[in-house]
Amino acid sequence: MEKDNTYFGVKEIARRANVSIATVDRVIHNRTGVSEKTKRKINEIIKELDYQPNILASRLASRKIISLAVLLPKVSPETDFWEAPLKGIDRAQQEIKKYGVQVSTFLFDLNDHKSFSEQTKLILEGTFHGVLLAPSFVDESREFAKACNKLKIPFTFIDSDIPDQENLAYIGPHLFQSGYVGAKLLTYRLKEKHKVLVVNISKETDTYNYLQIEEGFRSYFKDNSLPGEIIRVDIKDTDNLSVTRDLKRILHTNEDIEAIFVTNSRVSAVASFLEKNKRGDISLIGYDFLKENVRYLNEGLIDFLICHKPEEQGYRGLMALYQTLVLGSAVEKVHFMPIDIITRENQAFYQN
Amino acid sequence: MEKDNTYFGVKEIARRANVSIATVDRVIHNRTGVSEKTKRKINEIIKELDYQPNILASRLASRKIISLAVLLPKVSPETDFWEAPLKGIDRAQQEIKKYGVQVSTFLFDLNDHKSFSEQTKLILEGTFHGVLLAPSFVDESREFAKACNKLKIPFTFIDSDIPDQENLAYIGPHLFQSGYVGAKLLTYRLKEKHKVLVVNISKETDTYNYLQIEEGFRSYFKDNSLPGEIIRVDIKDTDNLSVTRDLKRILHTNEDIEAIFVTNSRVSAVASFLEKNKRGDISLIGYDFLKENVRYLNEGLIDFLICHKPEEQGYRGLMALYQTLVLGSAVEKVHFMPIDIITRENQAFYQN
Repeated sequence: MEKDNTYFGVKEIARRANVSIATVDRVIHNRTGVSEKTKRKINEIIKELDYQPNILASRLASRKIISLAVLLPKVSPETDFWEAPLKGIDRAQQEIKKYGVQVSTFLFDLNDHKSFSEQTKLILEGTFHGVLLAPSFVDESREFAKACNKLKIPFTFIDSDIPDQENLAYIGPHLFQSGYVGAKLLTYRLKEKHKVLVVNISKETDTYNYLQIEEGFRSYFKDNSLPGEIIRVDIKDTDNLSVTRDLKRILHTNEDIEAIFVTNSRVSAVASFLEKNKRGDISLIGYDFLKENVRYLNEGLIDFLICHKPEEQGYRGLMALYQTLVLGSAVEKVHFMPIDIITRENQAFYQN
Repeated sequence: MEKDNTYFGVKEIARRANVSIATVDRVIHNRTGVSEKTKRKINEIIKELDYQPNILASRLASRKIISLAVLLPKVSPETDFWEAPLKGIDRAQQEIKKYGVQVSTFLFDLNDHKSFSEQTKLILEGTFHGVLLAPSFVDESREFAKACNKLKIPFTFIDSDIPDQENLAYIGPHLFQSGYVGAKLLTYRLKEKHKVLVVNISKETDTYNYLQIEEGFRSYFKDNSLPGEIIRVDIKDTDNLSVTRDLKRILHTNEDIEAIFVTNSRVSAVASFLEKNKRGDISLIGYDFLKENVRYLNEGLIDFLICHKPEEQGYRGLMALYQTLVLGSAVEKVHFMPIDIITRENQAFYQN
């Protein structure tokens, strides 16, 4: 094995270029005393071997640990959406842990503001070099962003954005356009004079997130001069019983609703309601490639699911921190994810 | 740099485990004489460092070159679809060339059977260890597959499949299901009693490829008991003038056609015809995220594009050969690509 080892790195470059190790060293560190021709030759071999002298070696040599904190909602009985970003974060972690990157995960309850603040407090008490978070609670996220900026800790948002927080990056959907796509898909089954219901099922409904999606949704109808009525309902008690109760009430007073657009992954709760109440005639569109949602898609109760590659959001979010903290390279400030359209017919081949 | 170099590989593992290099060597080669505890410790460090002793070192030591041939259609004035797979192949090549993998590209003319055979002859005269190809011409591909099998050269198909050729892998769409998705999307704008046109623009139209897509397309109408007529036209002279002439003829004798489904990337030729003849009332669906196609999508002449991630097909196709020839690991025999749905509203965020 010792013999094999000599094939790695500088020695192998020197062997291939037929020069001394000292010469290779000079080229790598941009020192003088090497002819242009030899320099070119060595650089070509370096490129060919994809040799990266500085990252792994110097990271290992420095033995400095980079600690990252991840702050995401808990997987709950109501939604397992957050499994996917965690999977992506784990994949990134596997790739970069050899550079001394360590990741600690902090989880909060989407139904409890305080749990978010408690976790941010723990993070700020720690000694983290960077944070990846889903800013689900806007006021609390703003406060946390302020604290991070003061401590010069870079942080990236995934899934949803809050403007003007000096975050290192946002990796997630173009929310307005995502709502716009939802409206386009919904119109396929609508009659001339339609009545459409927009449903927000969330503790926080007046956030930038939901407002952007709804604005995009309404804009499609306006841009295409489609007459009709769009009504909105916010369901802040997010358990299935409360959702059922609220939907029953609103469909009772609005019997002529033709289509429902659910602004997040809770669309299965609405599908379940429609199934039980035999209202399969209503078009239904919502978000995210979750098991329950795909089941209702296959049963024909959900017409379309819109997805934003949550696994990749987690992966890219963590890699953005790695890029800035370990490689010292520039990071794309906003990276919009694809707005994927999933139907019963193409779901079997989807890569979430 | 010599000092840094010691941080790589076996020496670093020995240092971290606080054992001799000989001990690490024993564990790596599964020899006796190491306590269970030390063994576990060393294996943990190996895992942590993501250390792969055998691939790069032994490949470099053997200095054996693995030569791969790529056989794809030329980019032509009619379609630049094949740029994307080549991009993916190039990306794979960048990753694996350090293991001694070399790639040679052979291009044929989609309008000329003979050019395909000429290129396969060149490949067989060479000394290639594996082949990646798009089997656009079925008879010629079968013949080539037979020759490869005789020489025990593994080969992978991308983009379209031919059954029973003992190919190492197929990486591309589930063709039947892709046509099925096309029909679903097309029905959104159809009236009760519709007349739909399926257009094949290709020298080869009775291939497994097109037949599968068309069967999927027709099956959707059958499965959903949608009455109406589906007619098919094959346009074997694929230049834009011939396409225009044939479409003019068929739309003249079938004035009531409501929708057109183009079975490949040539949908822009049909869109151009509809635009010139002011027939924007006809729904149009076709394949592939090409510049011209996206332009007509944005102008509203194309309703939907279906895409199968051609860049990734090229990447995965080459990596399949690398997996079997360099790593000696198993390869997934069939890898179906996603069936992506692109509209004017989500195209800006699509990753081809």
